[in-house]
Amino acid sequence: SKTYKIAVIPGDGIGKEVMPEGLRVLEAAARRFGIRFEFTHIAWASCDYYQQTGQMMPDDWKAQLQGQDAIFFGAVGWPATVPDHVSLWGSLLKFRREFDQYINLRPVRLFEGVPCPLANRKPGEIDYLVVRENTEGEYTNLGGVMYAGTDREIVIQESVYSRFGADRVLKYAFELAQGRPRRHLTVATKSNGIAISMPWWDGRADAVGAGYPSVTVDKQHIDILSARFVLQPGRFDVVVASNLFGDILSDLGPATTGTIGLAPSANLNPERNFPSLFEPVHGSAPDIYGKNIANPVAMIWSGALMLQFLGEQAAHDAILKAIEQTLASGPRTRDLGGEADTTEMGKAIAELI
Amino acid sequence: SKTYKIAVIPGDGIGKEVMPEGLRVLEAAARRFGIRFEFTHIAWASCDYYQQTGQMMPDDWKAQLQGQDAIFFGAVGWPATVPDHVSLWGSLLKFRREFDQYINLRPVRLFEGVPCPLANRKPGEIDYLVVRENTEGEYTNLGGVMYAGTDREIVIQESVYSRFGADRVLKYAFELAQGRPRRHLTVATKSNGIAISMPWWDGRADAVGAGYPSVTVDKQHIDILSARFVLQPGRFDVVVASNLFGDILSDLGPATTGTIGLAPSANLNPERNFPSLFEPVHGSAPDIYGKNIANPVAMIWSGALMLQFLGEQAAHDAILKAIEQTLASGPRTRDLGGEADTTEMGKAIAELI
Ligand SMILES: CC(C)[C@H](C(=O)O)[C@@H](O)C(=O)O
Ligand SMILES: CC(C)[C@H](C(=O)O)[C@@H](O)C(=O)O
Repeated sequence: SKTYKIAVIPGDGIGKEVMPEGLRVLEAAARRFGIRFEFTHIAWASCDYYQQTGQMMPDDWKAQLQGQDAIFFGAVGWPATVPDHVSLWGSLLKFRREFDQYINLRPVRLFEGVPCPLANRKPGEIDYLVVRENTEGEYTNLGGVMYAGTDREIVIQESVYSRFGADRVLKYAFELAQGRPRRHLTVATKSNGIAISMPWWDGRADAVGAGYPSVTVDKQHIDILSARFVLQPGRFDVVVASNLFGDILSDLGPATTGTIGLAPSANLNPERNFPSLFEPVHGSAPDIYGKNIANPVAMIWSGALMLQFLGEQAAHDAILKAIEQTLASGPRTRDLGGEADTTEMGKAIAELI
Repeated sequence: SKTYKIAVIPGDGIGKEVMPEGLRVLEAAARRFGIRFEFTHIAWASCDYYQQTGQMMPDDWKAQLQGQDAIFFGAVGWPATVPDHVSLWGSLLKFRREFDQYINLRPVRLFEGVPCPLANRKPGEIDYLVVRENTEGEYTNLGGVMYAGTDREIVIQESVYSRFGADRVLKYAFELAQGRPRRHLTVATKSNGIAISMPWWDGRADAVGAGYPSVTVDKQHIDILSARFVLQPGRFDVVVASNLFGDILSDLGPATTGTIGLAPSANLNPERNFPSLFEPVHGSAPDIYGKNIANPVAMIWSGALMLQFLGEQAAHDAILKAIEQTLASGPRTRDLGGEADTTEMGKAIAELI
């Protein structure tokens, strides 16, 4: 059987607490399915490393990671010591861009046993995928400050989109929708307010969509779309969005299913020219770090998405089933109303595999 | 008693259906409190007008409105005939900018009798104000398309902020928070991803906040902030946000209280150099227009905010009380689970005054 080389980067805060559980479950799946992993444990891409060296990653980070089959990533950010834009632009956002992980795939699903913050919603009623553009758009460090430090200060922040970048994420989303029973795609926009980029983005959705006549398309402004994630979650199947809008929707969606502690993500380079990266949607959560109370499911589910991307569908399915069972019958962490700690919940899931 | 000159602009779609109810309630309040209104009914700032004339408003729109005490506004937008960015930039967004309505104040409140989409939330538990910057930021038509029409197409969209613009909205929000029992301000940000404007915005919040030591401040990234509107709505008191983030939060917040059909807004020029504008948060809703089923409460509550801004606090309070009573005991429109039409609900509220 093939050996997968995995770079393991816990990062900061609860990233360090949920990572051991992610690995525990991967190892359980490896035993059961005869998969072999070669883990490379990496302490950089963390604010601890920054404090020691003055940078988030070593100069040869790309060379060190280039031969890996995937990156298994916890969370980065420790604003008490390093400003977020420094830590994130120096690590995660670099991976996404320099490894051209242009798809950020984020499933949203309501599970049995998870108290839903929305009234009267049953498992099965919330089940959609957010496809987020992951390399351009609103996330840039382009622009600047004029008359800095004076009362006349003016700030320009540029968003940058390309047809190349928009079309490939739209195409991915249309393909995904086409392969699902409902064949429905929601396109996030804000063309009534953001007057250059968003009407253009709508046009690219029309152009790419012309090739997928069997997919129904619904363009929605980000404001009302956010409202509908709460009011009518059942209407969504696949949702495609720019970098910023996808970021918002993929925290909001999981919140409606009970906790962002469940939400996984796959940062994909579909062509496999570079390693893809798998990480929880939640961040480093300084407020709960150190107590071993973080929910490890997002990390574990991210591992399942990694196995799926590597071609190990059966292992993915087994992990998902173990997550489902554990959510349904416990043990559960506190964010889910349970009393288990991070390790107990991770062990329970691993044992089911 | 003073006579208030009010420009009445129904606009498009359900704006035309809820406006009569807004006026009905204003007239009821006028009778009870001895207030006099002089209404000027305006058919422009609508897509109908655009279809006849090729522009959203006459050239002398500003002169026509300058003498008014306030603008009472329905909704603009009819994408089937006029693209949204054309209709909105040609009307509402012009008012906000050219009349320097730099505060967009949007209360969010859970009422008795309104089925809450969040599980187990009681009236009183959701009660906060979104203060949205309303004249700059992400809403611009600056930037452009390079290599247009080719595969190499690149789009630049500029966001523009000024210290002048940020400080005045932050100051307004701090003052507001300082006058409320909880004295708590949440500042929406995204400084980990949007690397120029948002760290700068955080800095302005710190600088302005230094003058308000009694207000507790909590900076939250827009992604997790959106999640917390669903998961922990009770933690919010006053929320201040840039133009785009405020737009999103002020649809999402009302959604968590049952329907965006309730949410009012006040576009304020606090210095009263120009008329302020009062409008529902909901748009023209082409999908339900023509059936007289739209919820008129957002329009009516916007009228109450207008009276408050004009100094008629007692009239504001009476309208709010009538809204509360009607929501609690009906008649209610369909979005609230009732069977009343727009007119019936409007009449019921008017009769209580
Ligand atoms: C119609 C649109 C331009 C407007 C906005 O985005 O400001 C609306 O959504 C609002 O919130 O008032
Ligand atoms: C940490 C932050 C830069 C990141 C993002 O905004 O992309 C995170 O919120 C996410 O969603 O992965």
